[in-house]
Amino acid sequence: MQISIQKDYFKQAVQEVMYAISNKPTIPILSGIKVAVDVNGVTLTGGNSDIVIQRVIPAIVEEEVIVQVYKEGSAVVPGKYFSEIIKKLPGDIFIEADEALHVTVQSKEIITTMNGYDPEEYPALPPMDESSIVIVPGGELVEMVKQTAFASAKAESRPVLSGVHISVQGSELALVATNAQRLALRRTFVETEWESACIVPSKTLLDLAKLLQHSSTVKMAISDNYILFQSESLLLLSRLIEGNYPNIENLFPNEAKSVIASNRKNLLLGVDRASLFASEWRHNTISLAVKNGRQLKISSKSTAVGKIEEVQMIEMLDGEEELEIMLDGRYLLEALKAIKEEKVVLSFHGSIRPVLVQPFGDDKHLHLISPVRS
Amino acid sequence: MQISIQKDYFKQAVQEVMYAISNKPTIPILSGIKVAVDVNGVTLTGGNSDIVIQRVIPAIVEEEVIVQVYKEGSAVVPGKYFSEIIKKLPGDIFIEADEALHVTVQSKEIITTMNGYDPEEYPALPPMDESSIVIVPGGELVEMVKQTAFASAKAESRPVLSGVHISVQGSELALVATNAQRLALRRTFVETEWESACIVPSKTLLDLAKLLQHSSTVKMAISDNYILFQSESLLLLSRLIEGNYPNIENLFPNEAKSVIASNRKNLLLGVDRASLFASEWRHNTISLAVKNGRQLKISSKSTAVGKIEEVQMIEMLDGEEELEIMLDGRYLLEALKAIKEEKVVLSFHGSIRPVLVQPFGDDKHLHLISPVRS
Repeated sequence: MQISIQKDYFKQAVQEVMYAISNKPTIPILSGIKVAVDVNGVTLTGGNSDIVIQRVIPAIVEEEVIVQVYKEGSAVVPGKYFSEIIKKLPGDIFIEADEALHVTVQSKEIITTMNGYDPEEYPALPPMDESSIVIVPGGELVEMVKQTAFASAKAESRPVLSGVHISVQGSELALVATNAQRLALRRTFVETEWESACIVPSKTLLDLAKLLQHSSTVKMAISDNYILFQSESLLLLSRLIEGNYPNIENLFPNEAKSVIASNRKNLLLGVDRASLFASEWRHNTISLAVKNGRQLKISSKSTAVGKIEEVQMIEMLDGEEELEIMLDGRYLLEALKAIKEEKVVLSFHGSIRPVLVQPFGDDKHLHLISPVRS
Repeated sequence: MQISIQKDYFKQAVQEVMYAISNKPTIPILSGIKVAVDVNGVTLTGGNSDIVIQRVIPAIVEEEVIVQVYKEGSAVVPGKYFSEIIKKLPGDIFIEADEALHVTVQSKEIITTMNGYDPEEYPALPPMDESSIVIVPGGELVEMVKQTAFASAKAESRPVLSGVHISVQGSELALVATNAQRLALRRTFVETEWESACIVPSKTLLDLAKLLQHSSTVKMAISDNYILFQSESLLLLSRLIEGNYPNIENLFPNEAKSVIASNRKNLLLGVDRASLFASEWRHNTISLAVKNGRQLKISSKSTAVGKIEEVQMIEMLDGEEELEIMLDGRYLLEALKAIKEEKVVLSFHGSIRPVLVQPFGDDKHLHLISPVRS
């Protein structure tokens, strides 16, 4: 294998593949990046037992030569050192691997030699059945992940809750995440008659959201043990979380006692301030109170330090004009951050039922937050 | 006490005073910020057993009213909560403290009440003898600190080495820091006949460097137990480290075997790259070798992973044309970062004596780095 390659393209691709490389690999070769070269360009692969990331660097992009291929072949280079040195080299990079698995990396007067692994021993990708796939615009998938994955459980006491439930059914793709105290859901229309569902580790999806080009088109396929996301230059394969995801259908309260609409940004700033004194409690408890059908009072108190309260005007109200509910300020804050729309709708169903938070006029995106018992 | 104050000025000042507030104060009142108000403006004080920071906010700055004083007086507010809420308030801030030590902080429709401490119980500043002082331009003092403090010892096995030695002698102010393997020294002329010396915790000086306005003039005074730095709006008082600082006079080698001049930036990048494979060893050992009096070879190797080497052209050489020395790449890197000049001079005194690193044509700033025995 022998190539020379433009530094900036290569640096970016190497860093992306490094997302999949663990500090403590299950087998030593997985600490390496596989570099495979053919006439079309370079394919980099990095992986661990849970995730595989593959990046393609075409030899030519928009009539510009990115990779000069002198000799096809492949090598497995030590990931950490390789990515560090690629970052620090000043210009175009020459890479050569010999039969003895020595890899030479050169740029100007700088020569590095590394001991590689045998590319023949690098694990093959698990086979994927690509007959049943869904196509989603990259930008939309990234948004859906960012609006749901944060709501999954951090603790691993119930592994299924540490993931995001992805389902395709009735021409709808839905992502759901919950930690049993709050839930985030985001749906979108997809053109398919195929139906499937799985649970994907949140971390995998957040990595995917960082790596996907917004302008790309993403092909998604689900098999028994893996989910595949593939765009023109990126392939990400993740192991699934096994188990039964809780049924969320009956969590949604109907017949709200009161529905209010507010400016999202103002509400977010108010909840952030009120959370100041809430941190004393296990649940970051803040109080939301509707007053006279016109005002929303946001407050918290700490017995030792003090209290904060502020009053905001409600833009619209439908239902009861007086109510109060205690909830975890952090959860409300995160829901308000996930929503991008200017106006937000809060539906109250009594002091012991969840509050529903939605962007105004959009029922494909919602958040549920359980109240805190006072 | 009753004032209203411009948010941006106040936020900045509160954050600066917070540098001195410890998470685990020795007495509870030191978790607070003292807010003292008189007709001239507001003085904020924060402190712990090692350092006190005081910030003055004048009532009027350039004919603009910054503080409206309705009632003089003082209060001690809980530092962490106070600074957090000040950051998050939307506009001008009204502050009132009553006799029962309740502090009300208000901005627009947002009202916070906190339980304060009794300002009468806040510790007084230790008295300073201000008859013997040195005046230094703020920007120069900041630079001197940044060029020396990093070289002090991180471990606390020899407390004096965790500080910076500051001396005033023969119209010269000198800052020295060393961890016994490397040393940084920076001198400047000061107009004084006063002589004194002390050891100041590095952290204090690095805090000072962050807080000082470059355009300010700083008054420095040293007493038995404290050092004082004071500019128009800032006062910083630090406890000294007790003990005898090592005599550094005889550390400086004379009669270099070889002196080279190089481009600082290129050398820095080369040393950074060579350090890649050096991290395997306890000392981050890299090798510097002069070849044919014209080239500098920078290299490192790791038995397990590989090796890196690069060759740079030397701009000037005086002395022996072939030599090699092993040293800690990190120390050389930090010395080269501390120097701002374009060209740097390295003096070699044999493979077991320290290397001297200096900006070209400046003997008031130097770094010594001991070689690593191979």
